Amino acid sequence: MDNRNIEFACVDVERQNRQGFAEVVFCQGKTHEQVVSILEILLRECQGNVLATRVDPILYDYVAERLEGLEYNDLARTMVWRRGPQAEEGRILVISAGTSDVPVAEEAAVTASVMGNRVERLYDVGVAGIHRMLEHMDVIRQARVLVVVAGMDGALPSVIGGLVDTPVIAVPTSVGYGASFGGLAALLTMLNSCAAGVGVVNIDNGFGAGRLASTINRLGGVTI
Amino acid sequence: MDNRNIEFACVDVERQNRQGFAEVVFCQGKTHEQVVSILEILLRECQGNVLATRVDPILYDYVAERLEGLEYNDLARTMVWRRGPQAEEGRILVISAGTSDVPVAEEAAVTASVMGNRVERLYDVGVAGIHRMLEHMDVIRQARVLVVVAGMDGALPSVIGGLVDTPVIAVPTSVGYGASFGGLAALLTMLNSCAAGVGVVNIDNGFGAGRLASTINRLGGVTI
Amino acid sequence: MDNRNIEFACVDVERQNRQGFAEVVFCQGKTHEQVVSILEILLRECQGNVLATRVDPILYDYVAERLEGLEYNDLARTMVWRRGPQAEEGRILVISAGTSDVPVAEEAAVTASVMGNRVERLYDVGVAGIHRMLEHMDVIRQARVLVVVAGMDGALPSVIGGLVDTPVIAVPTSVGYGASFGGLAALLTMLNSCAAGVGVVNIDNGFGAGRLASTINRLGGVTI
Amino acid sequence: MDNRNIEFACVDVERQNRQGFAEVVFCQGKTHEQVVSILEILLRECQGNVLATRVDPILYDYVAERLEGLEYNDLARTMVWRRGPQAEEGRILVISAGTSDVPVAEEAAVTASVMGNRVERLYDVGVAGIHRMLEHMDVIRQARVLVVVAGMDGALPSVIGGLVDTPVIAVPTSVGYGASFGGLAALLTMLNSCAAGVGVVNIDNGFGAGRLASTINRLGGVTI
Amino acid sequence: MDNRNIEFACVDVERQNRQGFAEVVFCQGKTHEQVVSILEILLRECQGNVLATRVDPILYDYVAERLEGLEYNDLARTMVWRRGPQAEEGRILVISAGTSDVPVAEEAAVTASVMGNRVERLYDVGVAGIHRMLEHMDVIRQARVLVVVAGMDGALPSVIGGLVDTPVIAVPTSVGYGASFGGLAALLTMLNSCAAGVGVVNIDNGFGAGRLASTINRLGGVTI
Amino acid sequence: MDNRNIEFACVDVERQNRQGFAEVVFCQGKTHEQVVSILEILLRECQGNVLATRVDPILYDYVAERLEGLEYNDLARTMVWRRGPQAEEGRILVISAGTSDVPVAEEAAVTASVMGNRVERLYDVGVAGIHRMLEHMDVIRQARVLVVVAGMDGALPSVIGGLVDTPVIAVPTSVGYGASFGGLAALLTMLNSCAAGVGVVNIDNGFGAGRLASTINRLGGVTI
Amino acid sequence: MDNRNIEFACVDVERQNRQGFAEVVFCQGKTHEQVVSILEILLRECQGNVLATRVDPILYDYVAERLEGLEYNDLARTMVWRRGPQAEEGRILVISAGTSDVPVAEEAAVTASVMGNRVERLYDVGVAGIHRMLEHMDVIRQARVLVVVAGMDGALPSVIGGLVDTPVIAVPTSVGYGASFGGLAALLTMLNSCAAGVGVVNIDNGFGAGRLASTINRLGGVTI
Amino acid sequence: MDNRNIEFACVDVERQNRQGFAEVVFCQGKTHEQVVSILEILLRECQGNVLATRVDPILYDYVAERLEGLEYNDLARTMVWRRGPQAEEGRILVISAGTSDVPVAEEAAVTASVMGNRVERLYDVGVAGIHRMLEHMDVIRQARVLVVVAGMDGALPSVIGGLVDTPVIAVPTSVGYGASFGGLAALLTMLNSCAAGVGVVNIDNGFGAGRLASTINRLGGVTI
Repeated sequence: MDNRNIEFACVDVERQNRQGFAEVVFCQGKTHEQVVSILEILLRECQGNVLATRVDPILYDYVAERLEGLEYNDLARTMVWRRGPQAEEGRILVISAGTSDVPVAEEAAVTASVMGNRVERLYDVGVAGIHRMLEHMDVIRQARVLVVVAGMDGALPSVIGGLVDTPVIAVPTSVGYGASFGGLAALLTMLNSCAAGVGVVNIDNGFGAGRLASTINRLGGVTI
Repeated sequence: MDNRNIEFACVDVERQNRQGFAEVVFCQGKTHEQVVSILEILLRECQGNVLATRVDPILYDYVAERLEGLEYNDLARTMVWRRGPQAEEGRILVISAGTSDVPVAEEAAVTASVMGNRVERLYDVGVAGIHRMLEHMDVIRQARVLVVVAGMDGALPSVIGGLVDTPVIAVPTSVGYGASFGGLAALLTMLNSCAAGVGVVNIDNGFGAGRLASTINRLGGVTI
Repeated sequence: MDNRNIEFACVDVERQNRQGFAEVVFCQGKTHEQVVSILEILLRECQGNVLATRVDPILYDYVAERLEGLEYNDLARTMVWRRGPQAEEGRILVISAGTSDVPVAEEAAVTASVMGNRVERLYDVGVAGIHRMLEHMDVIRQARVLVVVAGMDGALPSVIGGLVDTPVIAVPTSVGYGASFGGLAALLTMLNSCAAGVGVVNIDNGFGAGRLASTINRLGGVTI
Repeated sequence: MDNRNIEFACVDVERQNRQGFAEVVFCQGKTHEQVVSILEILLRECQGNVLATRVDPILYDYVAERLEGLEYNDLARTMVWRRGPQAEEGRILVISAGTSDVPVAEEAAVTASVMGNRVERLYDVGVAGIHRMLEHMDVIRQARVLVVVAGMDGALPSVIGGLVDTPVIAVPTSVGYGASFGGLAALLTMLNSCAAGVGVVNIDNGFGAGRLASTINRLGGVTI
Repeated sequence: MDNRNIEFACVDVERQNRQGFAEVVFCQGKTHEQVVSILEILLRECQGNVLATRVDPILYDYVAERLEGLEYNDLARTMVWRRGPQAEEGRILVISAGTSDVPVAEEAAVTASVMGNRVERLYDVGVAGIHRMLEHMDVIRQARVLVVVAGMDGALPSVIGGLVDTPVIAVPTSVGYGASFGGLAALLTMLNSCAAGVGVVNIDNGFGAGRLASTINRLGGVTI
Repeated sequence: MDNRNIEFACVDVERQNRQGFAEVVFCQGKTHEQVVSILEILLRECQGNVLATRVDPILYDYVAERLEGLEYNDLARTMVWRRGPQAEEGRILVISAGTSDVPVAEEAAVTASVMGNRVERLYDVGVAGIHRMLEHMDVIRQARVLVVVAGMDGALPSVIGGLVDTPVIAVPTSVGYGASFGGLAALLTMLNSCAAGVGVVNIDNGFGAGRLASTINRLGGVTI
Repeated sequence: MDNRNIEFACVDVERQNRQGFAEVVFCQGKTHEQVVSILEILLRECQGNVLATRVDPILYDYVAERLEGLEYNDLARTMVWRRGPQAEEGRILVISAGTSDVPVAEEAAVTASVMGNRVERLYDVGVAGIHRMLEHMDVIRQARVLVVVAGMDGALPSVIGGLVDTPVIAVPTSVGYGASFGGLAALLTMLNSCAAGVGVVNIDNGFGAGRLASTINRLGGVTI
Repeated sequence: MDNRNIEFACVDVERQNRQGFAEVVFCQGKTHEQVVSILEILLRECQGNVLATRVDPILYDYVAERLEGLEYNDLARTMVWRRGPQAEEGRILVISAGTSDVPVAEEAAVTASVMGNRVERLYDVGVAGIHRMLEHMDVIRQARVLVVVAGMDGALPSVIGGLVDTPVIAVPTSVGYGASFGGLAALLTMLNSCAAGVGVVNIDNGFGAGRLASTINRLGGVTI
């Protein structure tokens, strides 16, 4: 199976290199050997950034001994090889409601960044202290795309979506207890948002949110 | 069955008259004749306010032809006979997120009012335009008890609960569509509220919220 | 309540007129009189397009007798007063899987159109005959934003999302029977899409999808 | 992130010191170092009681070696620094249905106590032997606020709520097996309570119940 | 299909006549003509009691014009032809929590009665006023089998089951609103009953409860 | 808490000794020391059988070193001290569908046995090979009470309930995978049984089934 | 939209005529005019059988006045134009558990028949009287493909699947009440069938079952 | 219990040997000793292939030391003793959407193969890159039966089912995260497939799919 995976990856690489996109390896469920094999070929055959997600610390140690030039983000659990240019403007802003939501927010931020976007972060501004969020309205309004990450009641995207005309990508997290049911409560909150103009991704899917934010941000042009 | 119901009601009446509470008849599922029979005895044997809930317009017409002195609230679908004193201070504030949530909010407001409390209303201040709610923070902060009614994403109690130290009773409504699942989304949001100090009642249960608010408000003393 | 609604609407109008956006009235749950009152003020005080959604034929007849210049779309159940300019380029493409999904697709299309976007439609290209969709890949690839509407298995956004780099907004519909559970099946399919870069809105929420598509499309610049 | 957390905490402290409230640190999901850092600042900068919840024994050992003056409750898994006055009257009564529900009940009791309230406990009086509860009706009736904690069938708050006019805060626990579905059964029971005047918090959320009870109890005046 | 139904019914009749059981026709989903055809044959070919359930008033009128000797219970929506002996002792007691639960309780009571058992009723003794139930403990303790019918929180079987050593059959009803989810809340409560020795039947299934109660009661011997 | 538990247990013991019932200790969630303390008092103060359920092998070893005369059933995970008489007739038959359901079936069988009933077992006769069950119809028909334990599709109680007039207690187990959802599928099957006269207990609740079977069986008289 | 639908239908017709398959029109959600337009073209342009499903009596009357040669099945709610040959052997057997499941069974039977298969029926042989089914084992064993339709507990496919080596297609129906949750209980039962070799289709999806049975049956060769 | 299992197995063996089927041992939940005992008898008394499923590596090591001639498939977690003939034609094609779905696909493939069928595999052709699947349409069209295995959005069977007239068996897997809810999302997608002619088995039930595919494939005749 390795062969097909790797060949296929490169076909995509060719197509995506023209677009300044990164190659992505989803590591969960793959063996350490498989991850290194795929990464070796990507780094040799392709020219843009390379991203690996769902990387636990043990896998990171294994890879770091074998491949050079990587950055590890232990919150996002991502590895990145930055080799392409980075955008100077057209900010994606990643917002998290609580500190426990940060790992998912970081996965979104790293993903968007490695795909060539300029990314900023605004963390721990959940609705339980809404003034914290309101103090940063100017930063929020200047962003081109907002990724809003929240667990528990998942109410933050509704509040922000009601204050801006920017596209909002809402990411429910599995943070919570009791009747949060693994993120279901936050997911339903976001789908039922009173504020129109909010698109929702799967629970804990920081990668998907970062990818969608990048796709949207490129519409505005990305100066590199 | 009528006899037992009515006898029991009066036993309670005696106990509750000392507390200034109203008698309550839940009309849904009762025949028009049953409702009138129960009300006649309550009005004759008891001395405080009398409240009937879940009163559709046809039942109202039927009762209004037979019993005098009632007020009908067509939003709350309540009938009230006001015969007891009303509190002058110690405000319960009933807040609704949207205009569609108003019937449930009114049921809560009428219930609390008829139980002797001073009640004020603040409607249509949902999170999709959070500045509307923020403009009324002084009114919100002066209340002794807050009843916050919201459907769809149910996010309003979280936001308000994070701004005050007042007891907050959250009432999810079945207002919404798609994945609101008859109020389940709002219910889960409220149970998972990031703001501590929020108690939740059943979906659309304005009566229960008004009753609980009244019980709490009496702790602060009610000047009549 | 009418007064506050109307005042608030105009406040928003001022803000939104600068952006070329339409005013929107959600008619479900409002009386005929309320709808006309709100529309009269919007048409008098504001200058852009005006949109009313969830308009059943009886409401349409009522309004059409009282207000001029409206277009009624009986599939989308929308009324529109077009008074602003329309974009010439930067296409939003609305795709529906089946003919039963068309009402929701139309609500999305009308919403995006009345907010100033150029909108095209591609209907009845569901995965049960995937060649129908593949024959239109050039049209699909040329769009700036894709709104993909599907009920039953909800599989179409996954297939399309795997073929393009365009932002995809997925709209599950309540079309289906048995274990579709009112659109839940399609909703879960879309949230779990194998294709990254898909944002999901609530079941049957064509308006939300059109609004989000418009917000995204404006990033690419809208020549009017 | 630490800095912002800590700064924010102190802002709140200033506001809350005037109210005799405790500072609270939710430890789950925080590193040992983070917990100690936050606690050090709270203990130095603030003057009231300090509470830490969700403290497992290993964290307790870590903190106890570094900070003095704490009380550890191994059932509630709380750490408390008592430095403020305690109320002499206006009792909050915490009731548990079974012995397995005691940890959640204790979290509620410690929370209410550390916020300055007088708290009493009545444990193991579930409905499977209703006479046990009935024997304590005088104690139950004398309380200002009742916190009723129950897992499995969650029936206790309904029974108690039908016997008193006191505000009842119902706390479902995840205690149970089979079709209890992690506390869902008890949660639904409580939301559907036949007794009006019951407010429900999230599954296992002893802290939230204690916080709400404290907010309510302060309405009755707290002699310190 | 009629023929097969009727033939099969008689085969069963022969077997059941020896046991003094009644023949049962479940009318919901059958045409008026089908019901009369089946009843005619049962009344001619068999000798014991005959029971028809789920009989709406229109069907009753139709049957009453064509077949003699029936008793109609408009609460239970049952028709009965009593032709067999009735037991003098060995009481089944049917208890309902609220007046809205009475139709289901009556279906259980009629079913058990027509199967030859002595049946008594105790209605409107739900847990919201537990003293009402406690006043009847002697009647409850003297029964051989208890059928306990409750909607909303469904807590009554737990309370009764904890006070007696008698077999308890719990019947959840769909009475309730909001998060009762059509009787699901009461069903889960009963399955999670703290009191051992409670068997549960389907929501609103009064017939099944009456049938099971009869089967149990016959173990104790039935003097006819 | 120990004291209250133990005192209460003995109060019940006195009442239950007259009925030949066993004392029961539910061990899950209790410490080893608590279990031994409770058992010591029960064995000293009471005279009938003693049963402990949910006993894992480590607890068994701990208890066996301290208390004499116990029987451990490693399938049922029960400990029993048999000191009372055993019934000679009036058989309870415990039936399991598959071998994986045997632990729950054994818990039911041991419970019924230790409460003084004569118990027989018929295991591994599920509906996937219905002839296995049919071969034992004479044994099944001779039982006074049937306890039918099944996981996966949970279909066995329906089939057996359609063939006998004996009370059937259905016990769903959590055995299964995929869409069995921890026993929910079997639970729903049993509640919707086409065969009337089936009472259902909680998932995996062998103890409850054995207890209910014993209560029913005593109606038929138990010769000891 | 009509044009595209009709053109597409004919393209499929050409492909399917070679296979002896019928053309199918799903009428639910289409206007009377649309149905007639599509049928006119199918009947003119194609040569095999034509099937219309989900046809209510009013639509039937409308069509019958305009198009000749149709057979209406009022249980299955299907219209058929039989113009192709019918198979003489290779029987598909459609089995229903109860009489209420017959409409779905008939939809399956008509669908399979109109696709050229020989179809037999065996109705009302559910597990509540398993001997009825066992009496027909020879008929069941002689079939090539079995379609087994059941509501309520949905247990019949498990029992039959354990007795034969024939492919079994299980169809859950929405027949039932209480905790059948619109067919969910039967669906889960079938998915968790102890008998291997059972394939499940959607709730009430008789058409899908008939179509799958036909596809399977053709593998065995169809003598026409 | 061992004896009954083993005897029963042989009874089935005799019946199945005539059909060229394999004997199957489901190992999950059985002790190592039980597995070896059953296998020893099967290998001695029966003559066809023998299959053991749900074999973890530790069990494999245990068995491999004691019994000869087995093949272990570590992806499918199966052990096979091949002793019967293999079909030369009449291909079953097993398709997987992603590499994470391969273990379930392999269980299906091994099961079908060991039951005497010719099996081919086509892996990693999910809808996120639909061209991969389309490139293999000739292989897909030549198969007699298709087993399509997919997790996450579960969309692949819909796409394939719309392109072929072959029976499709859809197998949802528990692969996914967030709102996949352990395979529920994929299961619902498949049940709601827009393509008729798709039969679904339980989540992760590769064995059931292989068994059903084999039963279907035998209808077409199997040349051995």
